Amino acid sequence: MRGLDLAADVGALTAALVDLPSVSGSESELADAVEDALRRQGRHSRQGRQGRLEVHRDGDAVLARTDAGRPRRVVLAGHLDTVPVADNLPARVEGDLLYGCGTSDMKSGVAVMLRLAATLPDPAYDLTWVCYDNEEVEAAKNGLGRVARNSPDWLDADLAIVLEPTAGMVEAGCQGTLRATVHLSGRRAHSARSWLGSNAIHAAAPVLARLADYRPRSVEIDGCTYREGLNAVGISGGVAGNVIPDACAVDVNYRFAPDRTEQAALAHVRDVFGGYEVTLVDSAPSAPPSLAAPAAAAFVAAVGTAPVAKQGWTDVARFAVLGIPAVNYGPGDPNLAHTREEHVLVPRITECERTLRAYLSTGG
Amino acid sequence: MRGLDLAADVGALTAALVDLPSVSGSESELADAVEDALRRQGRHSRQGRQGRLEVHRDGDAVLARTDAGRPRRVVLAGHLDTVPVADNLPARVEGDLLYGCGTSDMKSGVAVMLRLAATLPDPAYDLTWVCYDNEEVEAAKNGLGRVARNSPDWLDADLAIVLEPTAGMVEAGCQGTLRATVHLSGRRAHSARSWLGSNAIHAAAPVLARLADYRPRSVEIDGCTYREGLNAVGISGGVAGNVIPDACAVDVNYRFAPDRTEQAALAHVRDVFGGYEVTLVDSAPSAPPSLAAPAAAAFVAAVGTAPVAKQGWTDVARFAVLGIPAVNYGPGDPNLAHTREEHVLVPRITECERTLRAYLSTGG
Repeated sequence: MRGLDLAADVGALTAALVDLPSVSGSESELADAVEDALRRQGRHSRQGRQGRLEVHRDGDAVLARTDAGRPRRVVLAGHLDTVPVADNLPARVEGDLLYGCGTSDMKSGVAVMLRLAATLPDPAYDLTWVCYDNEEVEAAKNGLGRVARNSPDWLDADLAIVLEPTAGMVEAGCQGTLRATVHLSGRRAHSARSWLGSNAIHAAAPVLARLADYRPRSVEIDGCTYREGLNAVGISGGVAGNVIPDACAVDVNYRFAPDRTEQAALAHVRDVFGGYEVTLVDSAPSAPPSLAAPAAAAFVAAVGTAPVAKQGWTDVARFAVLGIPAVNYGPGDPNLAHTREEHVLVPRITECERTLRAYLSTGG
Repeated sequence: MRGLDLAADVGALTAALVDLPSVSGSESELADAVEDALRRQGRHSRQGRQGRLEVHRDGDAVLARTDAGRPRRVVLAGHLDTVPVADNLPARVEGDLLYGCGTSDMKSGVAVMLRLAATLPDPAYDLTWVCYDNEEVEAAKNGLGRVARNSPDWLDADLAIVLEPTAGMVEAGCQGTLRATVHLSGRRAHSARSWLGSNAIHAAAPVLARLADYRPRSVEIDGCTYREGLNAVGISGGVAGNVIPDACAVDVNYRFAPDRTEQAALAHVRDVFGGYEVTLVDSAPSAPPSLAAPAAAAFVAAVGTAPVAKQGWTDVARFAVLGIPAVNYGPGDPNLAHTREEHVLVPRITECERTLRAYLSTGG
């Protein structure tokens, strides 16, 4: 295996990462390459002020950290995996654009992280790198979640920057998400004698009306406006073409602002559907923007543009659960994530690297 | 193969028919036995006034008819097939009850038909027997429908009596049935940014409200009251737990009174769901009670109890399409059809045979 050159130009490093395919569940080759590069990096610089990097491996998650006795610590986090390749490998350059699976989501972000590990000899913060597996699949497999369970001390920091694609914006915190099912019941009968039954699908009419009439909140926190949403994402009912159905289920998804906990979100959903049977499917917590935290405020100042709310759920919530302020900030384009035409603007990767370098070098 | 004894007691004949299993699609052995018995019957009585029966075979449908020059003709019709056996064979007797798959639906009716073929030497009507296959499965396989396409002359008559289970009541005509789908559309979006989409499931709220608020008609014809019904029998929608759905489909079933044609029924459904996209799935016509027809009026008088509307769709509609008045009248218990505990009251089979014998012997 030819090693990754972390000192290379960040566009070239992104292309090298893209050319090591790492669809969720198949990240080992890339994780090995990242681990090897980080260990070499540690050896090469052990005489410098940065000191040797401590490297930790957990499955296909690779972590590294400095221990320079700085007063504050910043985590740089990014997932190594991609959605399935869609005939869009190897990486190819067209002018300022780098095309390929994972270019935006999020190997350009990982490239920025790794390059800083090789080229920032004297950071103002102690730093932790967290490269992890299985972000693009079910939450139970998520490598960051596994690290949080196995080695939460490795995630401890004053700020976590998750380099998911934000097109160079600071997207603060994130919405929480909750899925629940509203159950309607009835009584089966032959549809030729429908008066003997009770139609559970008809009983869903007021449930759907409540959803259609629902007015979601917009909640401002630290200057960021989180827009909520409560939506049916599935409905099913019916036994056969000649049977009055005795059951109907409406699956709803509530995206909630960071002023609500998962418990408060569930109470709200139960309140909206008062009088109906509601069962929780699953939920994930919101994350507050936490922009008042000193390391976060300094980062926002370094980026220089107004932060916005993250309208979506991301792994920043896993840091928030541990009490660690976390923001999303990365060079990729979120609108291109998961598309066949996925690409990234190379000058934006360079800009992202420059901004982070300035912030981490000076302490803001 | 031991032949069927059509002159046997009608309870014993029912048991013999039940003991020749004939789940839909596997009626050949029973059809062969019925054909053989009817052909033998013709030979045995060719010196009598009834004359030889003309026998016709179409797949596993077996038909026979007299040609005695009577002014009117009556069809006796019944299906040979049953739903799948449910550990309820062979037939067994408990007191007045005969248990087993097909006892009520409808080998007791077929036994009455066949016994009359052997023991009614001088009927007042010319008679046609129609024993057919595949009534319990999809309409396209129905043996009566096939005969109507291949040999409609064989079904020509002044009255058709379909010996489906009615517990000895005359159930006149039948409802029509129509299935349609109401389609809702929207625009997909990530559920974290639901304001970018348009939720097709929410759009179903007024459709379900119209169904819930719908007041079905009751229509009286020839003294029989047909109750209609318009019901959702299925609903489906949803892409994934994090996607605003762009499509939802509500499947409805309209059971309509005999004053409406299939075309009128579809127009009504389109009217109820005015403003929405409605597609027809399938439909089957209603059948009028036709109790004013002389052969029908005489039959009702012979039975001696007030006829009631058939709340359901049956093969009488296939006769109605050909302009032939048709009623449901049989010894089975409709509430026991398709159950594991299926049975029939033997005295009711005898009573049904006696009533039909009196009617067919005297002309009413």
